[in-house]
Amino acid sequence: MADPSTCPPLTPEAVRTAHSVIKPYVYQTPVFTSKTLNRIASTPNPDNVGAAKPVFRLYFKCENLQKIGAFKARGAFHALLRLCSEMGIEAVRTRGVTTHSSGNHAQALALAASTLDIPAHIVMPSISTPSKIDGTQAYGARVIFSGSTEPERVSVVQEVIAETGAILVPPYDHPDIILGQGTASLELEEQVVELLANQSRDHDTLKKEHPLDAVITPLGGGGLLAGSATYFSGTPSTRVFGAEPSFQGGDDGRRGLAAGSRISEVRTLTIADGLRTPMGEINWTVISDQNKVSGLFAVTEDQIKVAMKLVLERMKLVIEPSAAVPLAVILFDEEFRAIVEKEGGEKGWDVGVVFSGGNTTVEAIYKLYADS
Amino acid sequence: MADPSTCPPLTPEAVRTAHSVIKPYVYQTPVFTSKTLNRIASTPNPDNVGAAKPVFRLYFKCENLQKIGAFKARGAFHALLRLCSEMGIEAVRTRGVTTHSSGNHAQALALAASTLDIPAHIVMPSISTPSKIDGTQAYGARVIFSGSTEPERVSVVQEVIAETGAILVPPYDHPDIILGQGTASLELEEQVVELLANQSRDHDTLKKEHPLDAVITPLGGGGLLAGSATYFSGTPSTRVFGAEPSFQGGDDGRRGLAAGSRISEVRTLTIADGLRTPMGEINWTVISDQNKVSGLFAVTEDQIKVAMKLVLERMKLVIEPSAAVPLAVILFDEEFRAIVEKEGGEKGWDVGVVFSGGNTTVEAIYKLYADS
Repeated sequence: MADPSTCPPLTPEAVRTAHSVIKPYVYQTPVFTSKTLNRIASTPNPDNVGAAKPVFRLYFKCENLQKIGAFKARGAFHALLRLCSEMGIEAVRTRGVTTHSSGNHAQALALAASTLDIPAHIVMPSISTPSKIDGTQAYGARVIFSGSTEPERVSVVQEVIAETGAILVPPYDHPDIILGQGTASLELEEQVVELLANQSRDHDTLKKEHPLDAVITPLGGGGLLAGSATYFSGTPSTRVFGAEPSFQGGDDGRRGLAAGSRISEVRTLTIADGLRTPMGEINWTVISDQNKVSGLFAVTEDQIKVAMKLVLERMKLVIEPSAAVPLAVILFDEEFRAIVEKEGGEKGWDVGVVFSGGNTTVEAIYKLYADS
Repeated sequence: MADPSTCPPLTPEAVRTAHSVIKPYVYQTPVFTSKTLNRIASTPNPDNVGAAKPVFRLYFKCENLQKIGAFKARGAFHALLRLCSEMGIEAVRTRGVTTHSSGNHAQALALAASTLDIPAHIVMPSISTPSKIDGTQAYGARVIFSGSTEPERVSVVQEVIAETGAILVPPYDHPDIILGQGTASLELEEQVVELLANQSRDHDTLKKEHPLDAVITPLGGGGLLAGSATYFSGTPSTRVFGAEPSFQGGDDGRRGLAAGSRISEVRTLTIADGLRTPMGEINWTVISDQNKVSGLFAVTEDQIKVAMKLVLERMKLVIEPSAAVPLAVILFDEEFRAIVEKEGGEKGWDVGVVFSGGNTTVEAIYKLYADS
């Protein structure tokens, strides 16, 4: 990985540069709207006494339709391309790259490496879902199995590095990854500008360069949220929020903010499996900055399932549970809804929501809803 | 419904006119491509001896993302707008409209009627899925319950007409419906032209006004297929195919063609529940014309399930089983695949596929895959 000291600072301009670098390699995923979801989100929760009355217009950035089915392709391409421009592509090809991941980062790095003709050694726990192992191998990566605990994985990665000289590409705790993930928010804003211009709903909005009142993304390791917060750090009219699962302490970001320091260990088996990791250190510096992130909110497993079901049935889109967490906050978190009611008033808020990924299976959906 | 004798003839120009009429009321749904599905479709079936070796580039017209979740919105809006221009909107508002449907046509007519402020009386079997009844009522239609057999439904519709003077809007067997549904293919072609121009893949394709070698749609009552065949009837370089479920004789179109006459009764409980109906009479005149439709193919329930699963997991799109039938033909029908191999050769075929609808639920997906 490029030495962080050589990385560009975390600024909106650096996200723009990252976007121009990765643009030929990733999809500009569509932004969808849904009148049905706007209506549901703008209806007070009947079960809650004194429920908030926010007005939402939602814009969904569909990174579930991104290459490898998740936004992670952005960070992986950006990290590798930056590495190649720092070291020269031949040096990177000679050494190869490595990481450990049981999820979307494994496939993202495998794809980026195979696209750039760089050998990739991906360490995956041997208990990983067979489809994810197949997916990673299908992109031409060498998969090395490890135990499932963090020390077991790290020790296998260290062996790989010792053997091959491969360069480690971490999943989220690196400026190049953060800048790459931030490009999803850059596109989201540009696409909403275009969408509103085509609707020419009102002249007020029509003229706006920054039409979004807020953006909300899932928070796991913090690459996506820190990237989005970096992109919008020059735009005080757009507030950035993070969304976490509360199950078994999966809301380490929210708890860390309350405690005033990063929580570095998390053990949760939340259905939002992309958000089981603790926040990274660099990510923390961005996310704990109140000028950059306006708040973190957490939701229950049932709330995540309701949100995911609505997206499947009403928007006809397959998203993974992690990707449903921000919508669950919008639908169910009374504190968040009260902010939107108060700040947005009758006019309401235009809110960007990042659907971070869609990597699930019919079997997994089956299991998720089997007991409910 | 407008008297068929006053309807425009079934020509590509009439589809263009229909499109200009309904354009403000329906979505231009996106056209998606998938390298993964192109690769899978272009791989010979390993289980079949002498399996064909076709090359496919597929373009999926996502009518699952259409209003009410299905292409039926097109025909319903076109039929009502034509009726209003024939009779005057006030006369239509005084009389109201009616139909019987347990599926997408009910919601489509309810939406079109409520948009144009016309009362709608929808006869639904009392055993219909509660979510579909709710959906129809949510669009402001009056729902009247009936028994589930055809005579029971028709008799309730006749009562409604006698009581209210409402005008019957049939689901598929009418020129205005056929022309409305044909607009999906018109858009598909235009969008593929634009997509290939942006890719500027090769100059050959770049210049083509009609880039598609074939279009394949589901065949139930025949509105969508007849509409597509009408649109492409002036374009001999684009062949039109229909796809049916074979379960319990659901392939009435194919059997009718073999017998030389339309089959007017079908009793199948295929999972492709939108395709359980026999083909309409006007639809038959179009579909049985070999200059307009080049062939009908049928697939098994398991093949439909495999295709639907691929779309859910690989394209991250929710489609209903009926919408997966054309892709199942592309993947599994060796006769169809042999045509593409023979005619397309090494270059292969650019094939448009209409994803007709996405109205299913997590529970229905659950049940569909519970035993497999």
